[in-house]
Amino acid sequence: MADNNSELRKELIEKAKSGIREAYSSEEYALMQAVNAWLELSKSRNLASERLAEWYGIYAPESAKAGSAGLAKAAMELAENVGSAERTGMGRKMNDDEASALKSFAEYGMKADSVITSLEEYLKVAANRLMPNATYLTDEKIASELLSRAGSLERLATMPASTVQLLGAEKALFKHIKYGSKPPKYGVLFKLVDVTAAPKEQKGKIARVYATKLSIALKADFFSKRFIAEQLKKDLQESLKRIAETPSRPKPQWQQQHFQPRKRFGRQNNPKRGPRRN
Amino acid sequence: MADNNSELRKELIEKAKSGIREAYSSEEYALMQAVNAWLELSKSRNLASERLAEWYGIYAPESAKAGSAGLAKAAMELAENVGSAERTGMGRKMNDDEASALKSFAEYGMKADSVITSLEEYLKVAANRLMPNATYLTDEKIASELLSRAGSLERLATMPASTVQLLGAEKALFKHIKYGSKPPKYGVLFKLVDVTAAPKEQKGKIARVYATKLSIALKADFFSKRFIAEQLKKDLQESLKRIAETPSRPKPQWQQQHFQPRKRFGRQNNPKRGPRRN
Repeated sequence: MADNNSELRKELIEKAKSGIREAYSSEEYALMQAVNAWLELSKSRNLASERLAEWYGIYAPESAKAGSAGLAKAAMELAENVGSAERTGMGRKMNDDEASALKSFAEYGMKADSVITSLEEYLKVAANRLMPNATYLTDEKIASELLSRAGSLERLATMPASTVQLLGAEKALFKHIKYGSKPPKYGVLFKLVDVTAAPKEQKGKIARVYATKLSIALKADFFSKRFIAEQLKKDLQESLKRIAETPSRPKPQWQQQHFQPRKRFGRQNNPKRGPRRN
Repeated sequence: MADNNSELRKELIEKAKSGIREAYSSEEYALMQAVNAWLELSKSRNLASERLAEWYGIYAPESAKAGSAGLAKAAMELAENVGSAERTGMGRKMNDDEASALKSFAEYGMKADSVITSLEEYLKVAANRLMPNATYLTDEKIASELLSRAGSLERLATMPASTVQLLGAEKALFKHIKYGSKPPKYGVLFKLVDVTAAPKEQKGKIARVYATKLSIALKADFFSKRFIAEQLKKDLQESLKRIAETPSRPKPQWQQQHFQPRKRFGRQNNPKRGPRRN
């Protein structure tokens, strides 16, 4: 009896374990972690570049180095040559302690750059493996970020196009619902070059077209696993062309007014919102 | 005449240059950059540790590694041994691409740790050189952060104690002035162990005592450059003892009510503030 029980116990534990293994088996979890790491690291790197530029500026206010890589190199060179030649610049003369701190910080910037590169390489490989259609239509970063926002490839693939369009714009969406501010037109898809470069009144339409095609691409990625993105991209580009050719006209009167939310959502006017600007 | 002009021009440029050189001549500018770099980097490192823990958890959900250094090491080991032995854990089996991305990210964490350490070393040296009294009373991080908030040692040394007490609490202070929320008791000084560890009703008093002594210490650091911090610390500790011994009693009625701001500052009630909680 005791033997039987412990036998059963072992089996159940094994089953639980394999359940957990199953749950994490797909590579999408790694991809989501990687894209989040990439997003966070890119932010940190930008912050560090700004700081490095400011710090470097104390010693060489006359030179305006651009780009984080060039800057990091210049800072390291400066730190390595403390007190060697007479300096002709206008900046402060660095002492040894400062030099080693600045050098270390510049090294950090370079390390961050190289880690970002290797995360980008992984994103490229994994996104193309897991969601080849969606990646072909957009790029590996946007596709992976959409995946991470959705939480799993299954959820992303079964979302309606309008939800895909607004992934990443949750805050603006709920502000719209609650306070009646303008509805968002795009979330993560704002990062598409086609959207960024478009004239203001076309951005929303372009995001919509992308979301529609992406939704089809994602279903193919998750269900049929066939590569249909070439045809999709052709269709997409035709739609974009049509949007670009449509002349823009002033909005009808009713569209210029505020959307009025239902009363039960609470306050009608958002006190945080100043006067409409555009 | 032309010669005279160019002579004059040269001289004036030289003068401007030396003016700039003068303006940046003090080490306090380097210290401010270093402490800001340290603060930003510490935040990034914490974010990266959390991300690493989550990422590592996919492969080894059964192990809960604590501490960023231990975690980074574990992740690197895991990444290096991809596909070597049979894994008994419950997590996902990593492929080579994941392994190299994870390894690179773990290396980033370790690099960030080491850069933070070297920035801390610099803070220690420079803060003790520039503001020995203030550093003796608090520590190099708090003293440097106060310096960076004030903008220069001269400004910091000439501030009244009450301003030093609230450095870093600007947001809460202006919210208090504008909306009548509770006034802040401390800014950067919140990081003092004596403040953190104190019972709630003593924190403000302790910050006040620290600010008073710090203000004296900073004047000595900037003007007389004498080391008077030992006596100051003795006085400080006596004051702290007195505060700890004073029994706490309930606040009088009038103190429990809201502070009413002057009308011309605008709204009397802050709509962002929910009901009072403490």
